[in-house]
Amino acid sequence: MYRLGEIVARLGGELIGDADVDIRRMATLEKAGPGDLCFLTHSKYLQQLRSTRASAVILARKHQKATSLPKIVCDDPYVYYARAAQLLNAETRPAPGIHPRAVVEPGAEVPGSAAVGPFCHIGRGARLGERTVVGASCTIGEDVRIGEDALLGPSVTIYPRCVVGERSVIHAGAVIGADGFGMAPEAGRWVKIPQTGRVVIGDDVEIGANTTIDRGALDDTVIEDGVKLDNQIQIGHNVRVGAHTIMAACVGVAGSTRIGKHCAIGGGARIWGHIEIADRVNISATAEVVKSIPRAGTYTGVLPAGESREWARMVAHLRGLDRLSKRVAELEARVKPRKRKR
Amino acid sequence: MYRLGEIVARLGGELIGDADVDIRRMATLEKAGPGDLCFLTHSKYLQQLRSTRASAVILARKHQKATSLPKIVCDDPYVYYARAAQLLNAETRPAPGIHPRAVVEPGAEVPGSAAVGPFCHIGRGARLGERTVVGASCTIGEDVRIGEDALLGPSVTIYPRCVVGERSVIHAGAVIGADGFGMAPEAGRWVKIPQTGRVVIGDDVEIGANTTIDRGALDDTVIEDGVKLDNQIQIGHNVRVGAHTIMAACVGVAGSTRIGKHCAIGGGARIWGHIEIADRVNISATAEVVKSIPRAGTYTGVLPAGESREWARMVAHLRGLDRLSKRVAELEARVKPRKRKR
Amino acid sequence: MYRLGEIVARLGGELIGDADVDIRRMATLEKAGPGDLCFLTHSKYLQQLRSTRASAVILARKHQKATSLPKIVCDDPYVYYARAAQLLNAETRPAPGIHPRAVVEPGAEVPGSAAVGPFCHIGRGARLGERTVVGASCTIGEDVRIGEDALLGPSVTIYPRCVVGERSVIHAGAVIGADGFGMAPEAGRWVKIPQTGRVVIGDDVEIGANTTIDRGALDDTVIEDGVKLDNQIQIGHNVRVGAHTIMAACVGVAGSTRIGKHCAIGGGARIWGHIEIADRVNISATAEVVKSIPRAGTYTGVLPAGESREWARMVAHLRGLDRLSKRVAELEARVKPRKRKR
Repeated sequence: MYRLGEIVARLGGELIGDADVDIRRMATLEKAGPGDLCFLTHSKYLQQLRSTRASAVILARKHQKATSLPKIVCDDPYVYYARAAQLLNAETRPAPGIHPRAVVEPGAEVPGSAAVGPFCHIGRGARLGERTVVGASCTIGEDVRIGEDALLGPSVTIYPRCVVGERSVIHAGAVIGADGFGMAPEAGRWVKIPQTGRVVIGDDVEIGANTTIDRGALDDTVIEDGVKLDNQIQIGHNVRVGAHTIMAACVGVAGSTRIGKHCAIGGGARIWGHIEIADRVNISATAEVVKSIPRAGTYTGVLPAGESREWARMVAHLRGLDRLSKRVAELEARVKPRKRKR
Repeated sequence: MYRLGEIVARLGGELIGDADVDIRRMATLEKAGPGDLCFLTHSKYLQQLRSTRASAVILARKHQKATSLPKIVCDDPYVYYARAAQLLNAETRPAPGIHPRAVVEPGAEVPGSAAVGPFCHIGRGARLGERTVVGASCTIGEDVRIGEDALLGPSVTIYPRCVVGERSVIHAGAVIGADGFGMAPEAGRWVKIPQTGRVVIGDDVEIGANTTIDRGALDDTVIEDGVKLDNQIQIGHNVRVGAHTIMAACVGVAGSTRIGKHCAIGGGARIWGHIEIADRVNISATAEVVKSIPRAGTYTGVLPAGESREWARMVAHLRGLDRLSKRVAELEARVKPRKRKR
Repeated sequence: MYRLGEIVARLGGELIGDADVDIRRMATLEKAGPGDLCFLTHSKYLQQLRSTRASAVILARKHQKATSLPKIVCDDPYVYYARAAQLLNAETRPAPGIHPRAVVEPGAEVPGSAAVGPFCHIGRGARLGERTVVGASCTIGEDVRIGEDALLGPSVTIYPRCVVGERSVIHAGAVIGADGFGMAPEAGRWVKIPQTGRVVIGDDVEIGANTTIDRGALDDTVIEDGVKLDNQIQIGHNVRVGAHTIMAACVGVAGSTRIGKHCAIGGGARIWGHIEIADRVNISATAEVVKSIPRAGTYTGVLPAGESREWARMVAHLRGLDRLSKRVAELEARVKPRKRKR
């Protein structure tokens, strides 16, 4: 629990109103009660602000007169909310130590400050950073390196030789470093190509639940610093994702594609292999990116669903476009002579 | 093994033919042999009915004369099949008890009627309902509540404080309550927003293998009673899925969306965030739903694949629509004067 | 480490240059150094070939003069690369034996040549083939059969009674044999249909990380010999995938569909249920296949994303197709009389 004044002392912003009000947690304007701190990011929530039972509110200067509650005025209420929530929910990491039901192979290095959950298997030569937390039932392969303060949820698999940077977070069920999908066709059969590269993950990366990142065929698959990947994302072998790029859930990136820095990729987008995407490219949800995007900008590919009969008509028209196009050409042929007459 | 008459005595329907025939299991008309019970749901299988070697058949009144086999005549043969299969395959739950290779933290409550598999980790304060079954290698976080008769497959992760209702079934690899994807942009970096809500799952819910349901940012993510989710579905934070809604595999639902009751969502559909979908909405497979659907009905979004050359021509026409549209306008301009002359 | 001449002695091809050069590993032309063997598959890499620091190169006859390095000339450099990489990276399987922290139920058969990792649970009646390797934290259900030389990554789940063929590889987090999604609607609720079929996987199959394959409702789901499935693929109940068919990541195949032999399915493709796809069908990435494909050929369904404003215009035109079509018809009506006059 913090007093409102203590929060401002730590995180900045201008405090207007009672500095002594007690704050226990963040809440939404709609559900808040006494002890709750809320935030306002958009004028459309002003109605909710008027009726909120929160103890205090974070808002922008332009909204500061919208409430008589104790308030923190700041430049970016959404970022302030993130910081305040971090402060109020100070992560309680498990106590350090290796659970007696974990198996740590000889030659693995687990510092005394790290916490390894039950049923974890830490392979030979693996090295965990200081204060690393490994959830229950994780498998950490041989010679894996994990940076300081990293946090792994339960049932994460990291295949041998992969690297995870400092402060990176990997959620449950993620698989890092399984074989890339390399098969050579020979006489109607597929010959497996050994995947001998690694996955190298930078610092401050977040990887969602059940996301899979394949190891490189020969060179490495690379996820640069500050990248944030949501759940059920698939990253093919030898992909490089540039620093501070963010991807929403269910994105697929095929092999050998390079994505720039500071990109934002919407949920369910499909990015084909062997292409390059520039820095600062925004791609909408569900877009299908089939060729390189050499310039920053916003790219879309969604065909919004419609009422079924309407949609069926549209698809029929689509199929009839060849015919429609010819009909227009015929019309032009007939009409043209008139033009010449003029 | 049941006699046909016993099945009818338990499940209803009209028995025509020998009540004493022995039934060991359900089978398809095509593969059935002696001791097998089949069902007919559609006239297109009448051919198979004629040649089946089954011992008995479930069918609707309109088909009752189509076979001389012993038969059960009922209103809905598909539902009858479901009930009969439940009867014939009475689930054999494992014997109650906590496997000696599981770890149950102090303060967790596991009733004597529950079965906890090897390598499970049950966190402090977690409470399992009577007769709950937890498969091998599951991780149940602190203060999780699981209702009576729930059934978890192997390697399921339930993060702290989440709730699972009675008789709910969760298949292998599902991850319930990982962090929602909340990041605030600040000077080209992403600041993580702690996700402090829960996932609350109702009674009689089924959740498929490797499906992920994220915990809420501040309020909860809610899956209401009777919802059925197939495999590899992704539910973002603060989504609410209404009672008895069904989703086929690979659906993605982005954050804060509310889906009504009794909806049916086809496989691979993508539902954007912050929208509302009414009760009794049917959405086709692979549709992209980008805005709210305020009325019950059937919505589609599929663009069926075609032979490659045909498809390429269609896409070219699509790209040429701007030009085609202008050509039509020019034609209208030229032709119009004639109209005025009339 | 091999001498170049030893590689050719084992794998064939024509050696030109120093047979005694030492080869430690495969590498890309770009990153190679002394001791590395490279390959050239396409003229576009000739530039890289000129500047490579590799010790030797695999290439086709038509490129044999492009370098003075020691070289192996062969028909298919990509397949040769696969074979050479297999030779140079001879898999080091773990030592045989059951880890003391695994649980093998009475009545399971684990041959002395098999390796079972820590925290594995092998159910009653399960039978593992000779030299099978089971990674950490796998769950192998009752009466499962696994063929000789099969290889399972960590945290794989195989539900009871399923079958895995010889030399098959299953990567981490895959779930084989969870219940198919069978629900019968009754009065606004869903009645679960017990899924009593199995998953039967042939020999030489590869299954990617977090891929899910559901067990059949009554009959089996079948994956034939030599099939290669990438990560995060979903195969519904009662699907049959023909021999040597390959699927890239994130494909979804709905229930009861039959896919032929020697097909290639691009990443993210969605294949609807109850359809049949012939042998030797190629389907592009992200295509939506809604009906049977009775003939071999190449099928596409991708609508490539574009710059947002352009795309919005295209979608607007699409929605206006009904109106455009009517305008063309009106023009034809007006123009037609002129034709009659001629």
